[in-house]
Amino acid sequence: MNWLLIFIPVTIALEWLAPAKHLLLFIASSLAILPLAAWMGQATEHLAERMGEGIGGLLNATFGNAAELIIAIAALRAGLHDVVKASIAGSIVGNILLVLGASMLAGGLRHPEQHFNAVAARSQATMLTLAAIGLILPAVYNVAVGQRSSGSLGGLSITISVVLLAVYCLFLVFSLVTHSALFTGTHDAEEREVSTPPWSAGRAALVLAAATVMIAWMSEILVGAIDPVAKESGLSKAFVGVFIVAILGNAAEHATSVTAAIKNRMDLSLSIAIGSSVQVALFVAPVLVLVSLVIGPAPMNLTFPAGMVLIVLLSVLITGQVAGDGRSDWLKGVQLLAVYLILAVTYFFLPDPGVPSSP
Amino acid sequence: MNWLLIFIPVTIALEWLAPAKHLLLFIASSLAILPLAAWMGQATEHLAERMGEGIGGLLNATFGNAAELIIAIAALRAGLHDVVKASIAGSIVGNILLVLGASMLAGGLRHPEQHFNAVAARSQATMLTLAAIGLILPAVYNVAVGQRSSGSLGGLSITISVVLLAVYCLFLVFSLVTHSALFTGTHDAEEREVSTPPWSAGRAALVLAAATVMIAWMSEILVGAIDPVAKESGLSKAFVGVFIVAILGNAAEHATSVTAAIKNRMDLSLSIAIGSSVQVALFVAPVLVLVSLVIGPAPMNLTFPAGMVLIVLLSVLITGQVAGDGRSDWLKGVQLLAVYLILAVTYFFLPDPGVPSSP
Amino acid sequence: MNWLLIFIPVTIALEWLAPAKHLLLFIASSLAILPLAAWMGQATEHLAERMGEGIGGLLNATFGNAAELIIAIAALRAGLHDVVKASIAGSIVGNILLVLGASMLAGGLRHPEQHFNAVAARSQATMLTLAAIGLILPAVYNVAVGQRSSGSLGGLSITISVVLLAVYCLFLVFSLVTHSALFTGTHDAEEREVSTPPWSAGRAALVLAAATVMIAWMSEILVGAIDPVAKESGLSKAFVGVFIVAILGNAAEHATSVTAAIKNRMDLSLSIAIGSSVQVALFVAPVLVLVSLVIGPAPMNLTFPAGMVLIVLLSVLITGQVAGDGRSDWLKGVQLLAVYLILAVTYFFLPDPGVPSSP
Repeated sequence: MNWLLIFIPVTIALEWLAPAKHLLLFIASSLAILPLAAWMGQATEHLAERMGEGIGGLLNATFGNAAELIIAIAALRAGLHDVVKASIAGSIVGNILLVLGASMLAGGLRHPEQHFNAVAARSQATMLTLAAIGLILPAVYNVAVGQRSSGSLGGLSITISVVLLAVYCLFLVFSLVTHSALFTGTHDAEEREVSTPPWSAGRAALVLAAATVMIAWMSEILVGAIDPVAKESGLSKAFVGVFIVAILGNAAEHATSVTAAIKNRMDLSLSIAIGSSVQVALFVAPVLVLVSLVIGPAPMNLTFPAGMVLIVLLSVLITGQVAGDGRSDWLKGVQLLAVYLILAVTYFFLPDPGVPSSP
Repeated sequence: MNWLLIFIPVTIALEWLAPAKHLLLFIASSLAILPLAAWMGQATEHLAERMGEGIGGLLNATFGNAAELIIAIAALRAGLHDVVKASIAGSIVGNILLVLGASMLAGGLRHPEQHFNAVAARSQATMLTLAAIGLILPAVYNVAVGQRSSGSLGGLSITISVVLLAVYCLFLVFSLVTHSALFTGTHDAEEREVSTPPWSAGRAALVLAAATVMIAWMSEILVGAIDPVAKESGLSKAFVGVFIVAILGNAAEHATSVTAAIKNRMDLSLSIAIGSSVQVALFVAPVLVLVSLVIGPAPMNLTFPAGMVLIVLLSVLITGQVAGDGRSDWLKGVQLLAVYLILAVTYFFLPDPGVPSSP
Repeated sequence: MNWLLIFIPVTIALEWLAPAKHLLLFIASSLAILPLAAWMGQATEHLAERMGEGIGGLLNATFGNAAELIIAIAALRAGLHDVVKASIAGSIVGNILLVLGASMLAGGLRHPEQHFNAVAARSQATMLTLAAIGLILPAVYNVAVGQRSSGSLGGLSITISVVLLAVYCLFLVFSLVTHSALFTGTHDAEEREVSTPPWSAGRAALVLAAATVMIAWMSEILVGAIDPVAKESGLSKAFVGVFIVAILGNAAEHATSVTAAIKNRMDLSLSIAIGSSVQVALFVAPVLVLVSLVIGPAPMNLTFPAGMVLIVLLSVLITGQVAGDGRSDWLKGVQLLAVYLILAVTYFFLPDPGVPSSP
């Protein structure tokens, strides 16, 4: 994947020479982010290994979705709250439908039946249900209370964000400390891409810092191109945000999860796929709400558009059904991918972004 | 049941002598369809047996709900899209609540606890969740996008229909080929009503053809009577479509499923009840959308009224809960029947069809 | 807890001397109800023990939530249908989120993993799903049909109430007669607070009668104070009803359920927590609808505000997920409590009751 790094200078050159070629900028910056996210993940894991199991697990759990966090912060600073929300919703949905679906399908084509720890999977599925409830209520509140809600929506969003973050911390205690045995399969996650010998802490930190800076740069260019690209292509901004931008930050996880499934290591595969959704829903999203109070041009609330709340809810529902019994087969993969396809098609058919929506 | 065949000439005579007696025509044609559907099912299974297991299973899976398909096509040709949709929703809901509920109740009164293959049941329940999602999204899309949606709703409906059909085909591969062992209990379905000795292929095909023609004829009369009967009785057209018409095509399955449950053959019972819902939701409904492009006076979309989407979703939810653990008792039957009753009562209390709905 | 009985005379004195001190009246009458409800529960169980297992179980199942029933009837007689509905919704939600959550958390802190009968738990979870469907449909009907619904909403509410009551009766037959073995853990419930030796039937009946009269008195004062307290505190009436009043009648159950969980008797703990929700949803609520036809100033229907229907549905969903697998740990407790907190926070942020809601 390293050859994709060539798109870093390409993006920079394009930005300088042809800043109006939005589609090219969008594609180039996207391709540049892919290897950077992979390097970032690798550096995090090397660092995690150096730090020992406890801190290391924490590091993975916190920075595992750093690429997404950086893209979202770039959008936040540009005041594009709708892009941030779309990429959060898209990341939650994409990890449990696209990544998990592809993993179960790929694994299921090799192995007639695969098994994983049902208790751990259900525990994570319940975390997602909790997060979905945390998204449903502000959206419904907003509809119910209407225009008078502006004041209290902020307070409500902050409070729910703090609750979600607290539960996420307790979930880390649960999965890394008190009930780590349930998640043993997932401890292998730390070794997933680690080459031998492990990097020194200094080298890992350096790579991490460099990748962070470059992703931040590329993300700003990418985020700036979303609006014009959506307009020019006639696609809705929501489609671009939910189904294109969201895939970028998860590409590395996607590959790792599918590979693990093919190797019949379903516990690892699920911990990456569902675990990433849990992390985005209960860590990245609340952190962005809180961070927006400090850095943003305006504070971001937790009120997602109704359509995004719906697709998160439906994805979480079917994931609970599929992952709850501790076994998978290729049909389950097909079912998850079909839901993803149906959601994507529906967003694809949304009217042009330029047209105002009906009253 | 064969004596009900007398209602074929009765219906024809009525249609000729008293075409304005809508209620009588409705009842007579309904009663005529019951034995015809049973004959059709029997012929399909004799034919399936002649064809060998693979093709036979396919035949059953495709023509098992042929009676419903014919009724729906009659309504489609008359341009009564709302009747088609009501009978689809009613058939999905009726099979998993009424047929499965009655089976679990009847079986549970004889046997304190009954068991079935939970993996197969969950796999079918997930198919239904997938289908429910395929109904929810166009309905929500329609509400969200409003009047501007007319153009893209067609495209969205066709795409989702193709996805559902593709998943159904893969489900057949799963249940008949790669994982047929999970569904062994259901293979007995082929022998369910087969008398000894089996019919010759020619005789089966002849009966199938004759029954098809007669059902088509009776269906056209039935469908034509729905609107006036609803008006005269003061019942809503939705009630008639969802809770009366939908029961007709399923009467034969109903009897077979309950009988199987009493004999403690729950795998067969579930495969008939849930299997029929899966077939209607992922085969009959999408086929009708695609067929309407060719034969209908106007193309039909997948946008069901919100109320029907809701009852399908709720039915699917509770079915997943009831069927997910591989065991049943009489209380589960009562619970499913109670939900059916609550749904029917709600539709029953809907205002007269003649009154325009509030803005 | 008996020292709280001092608040009976305090409440009466306050009512006489300072009837305008609404907040004090609210607090004093609340505190007075707590020990009365505990005495009532104790008397019911002593009486139940005297009556033998069958009738005793029936008595517990019928009068287990008598305190709530009395509070609700007081509100019904005052014509405060919204308070009745809020306390029903709050009681359903509070028992499965707050009481069950606190029990699983407290038990889980002592025992790494706790087990209970999954079949019984699932059976009760399905009862709750059924009840949720019974609340969803009238609410949706009301929205769909609009102003023309006034007439038929009453009929619909009565019919659904009768169906729910019938299913509850059959559930009692199931859990006390035909499948009582599944619920053995819960039979201990009868001995849960019974001191040795058991009271005589006469003493139990006397205490029951006295407690009933006093609770009825205190409830009337409490209910009369809700509206002014909500106005003065700036909290919404829904918040007070759902999250404050509803907790009062359940305080005794709450303590018993948590204690049972700490003693690793999870079957008992679940039967109290989920069982109370089932009882409120399928017995108390329908009984109140039917009773309102006789005693109320106006008949009460089953049409709950959309927000309350939503929180009941979400609570039921996550409870099914958490209780379905027959094991619990402290994280499950945290998850349930977090959902309760999120619901409470959302209601807390609802605008002041005095402000009219937007059109």
